[in-house]
Amino acid sequence: MNRHTTRVTVRYGETDQMGFVHHRVYLLYFEHGRTSMMKALGCPYGQMEKDGAFLPVTEVGLKFKAPARFEDEIEIATTVQSVTAARVIFAYEVRKVVDDTLLCEGFTVLGSIGANGVAKRLPAGLVETLKGELA
Amino acid sequence: MNRHTTRVTVRYGETDQMGFVHHRVYLLYFEHGRTSMMKALGCPYGQMEKDGAFLPVTEVGLKFKAPARFEDEIEIATTVQSVTAARVIFAYEVRKVVDDTLLCEGFTVLGSIGANGVAKRLPAGLVETLKGELA
Amino acid sequence: MNRHTTRVTVRYGETDQMGFVHHRVYLLYFEHGRTSMMKALGCPYGQMEKDGAFLPVTEVGLKFKAPARFEDEIEIATTVQSVTAARVIFAYEVRKVVDDTLLCEGFTVLGSIGANGVAKRLPAGLVETLKGELA
Amino acid sequence: MNRHTTRVTVRYGETDQMGFVHHRVYLLYFEHGRTSMMKALGCPYGQMEKDGAFLPVTEVGLKFKAPARFEDEIEIATTVQSVTAARVIFAYEVRKVVDDTLLCEGFTVLGSIGANGVAKRLPAGLVETLKGELA
Repeated sequence: MNRHTTRVTVRYGETDQMGFVHHRVYLLYFEHGRTSMMKALGCPYGQMEKDGAFLPVTEVGLKFKAPARFEDEIEIATTVQSVTAARVIFAYEVRKVVDDTLLCEGFTVLGSIGANGVAKRLPAGLVETLKGELA
Repeated sequence: MNRHTTRVTVRYGETDQMGFVHHRVYLLYFEHGRTSMMKALGCPYGQMEKDGAFLPVTEVGLKFKAPARFEDEIEIATTVQSVTAARVIFAYEVRKVVDDTLLCEGFTVLGSIGANGVAKRLPAGLVETLKGELA
Repeated sequence: MNRHTTRVTVRYGETDQMGFVHHRVYLLYFEHGRTSMMKALGCPYGQMEKDGAFLPVTEVGLKFKAPARFEDEIEIATTVQSVTAARVIFAYEVRKVVDDTLLCEGFTVLGSIGANGVAKRLPAGLVETLKGELA
Repeated sequence: MNRHTTRVTVRYGETDQMGFVHHRVYLLYFEHGRTSMMKALGCPYGQMEKDGAFLPVTEVGLKFKAPARFEDEIEIATTVQSVTAARVIFAYEVRKVVDDTLLCEGFTVLGSIGANGVAKRLPAGLVETLKGELA
């Protein structure tokens, strides 16, 4: 299994009045892990959109294990769980760097559409690349 | 089954460059539906925190069915799916008001902790009230 | 002076660990007030973009007078302060509904560009309508 | 003048349907620049709150010069513009790393309160440290 990792520091505006990172923010962390992985693999998502290939998120699942807090440095580990011509599933683990505590784990399913919003096959090059990353 | 509904209008800052509401935003819509329901039931969540009862989100699942867009009026329907002394599960449907299109459905699991972050039983009054809302 | 008002309830995810609405959120409230006013005046901003007229924000100023908190109902009052063919300035006051406390006041300057990103004159109909709203 | 710089990559969820980073996001970038500078100076803001010193934002001003886009690497340069026992003013420049384009410049005024919300003097150590950073 090929894991891609990237790090971010928790921003103040990502906390809520409970004193923890608000749960919606992990979807931004997942997205950052996924797009960072695609860039590292030579398939930057921004370029894909310019080429007319859009990957909307169609399903997500997240389990929160421990709270992240302001100024925590966290690491997002991203893996490819499944790839077909119609969809990709990425899985994620978010951990606190200082002591490796698991904060959140989850997955996102991405579909594939064109600029007109109609379903179309994922770019062949992307499918091949992501298959090479499967466990 | 007792459904609680509330409406919001999609804000510009909730869209992304695909032209749709970004998927993280539905967690804010769910939260708005849930807290609006609790308020309508006489158990406003803000007061619960003042009384030392905190309900962190421990798990979520969302399926995206159709995109919401800027200025769409949407309706969030919230139901109670399960209640114990340790956790509550809410389910949600988000629909476009103009034509009732289903945009997103999902659930959130909420745990129960005290101000010190340690697990504790949900307030008995809340459990009783939410049980009265079960299907 | 023609004031347009609209109301929203503070969402949990809009608070930060200080227990207040995070300051960035007021820009979303301003935007909601402004787009709500434009819609009420028969010039919905979503339609303008479809017609190729984009109004990016080029400058903002905000003063925070008192904190808003979770579940507060707030009212956003929007007025047109200045209109030319090249830019519009809107001013805002955000108040707590329950006791009319002033929470935040500020302004946004909006420029005018086409779909290609190049500066162009604001739609004549919009300029005329907004001039009718000046103090 | 002592400039502190830090870098971030634009996230997809920070864009809006115009295809640019939404203007509210620059307040998160400014905040990240400011808290990163305070940490580098040995006065991490998270610790200050634990010690009972809170610095709410009381005023901001931003001018947007050019749009940032998804996947742009940007640099936030932060400087201290003014310090008294009651407030600090930070100034910011956000630039695109690849070609040094100025994207946004602005300032934030921070006041000083205790855990009870009442105004109090800034910690003496912080005032001294920040004075050492003045131009």
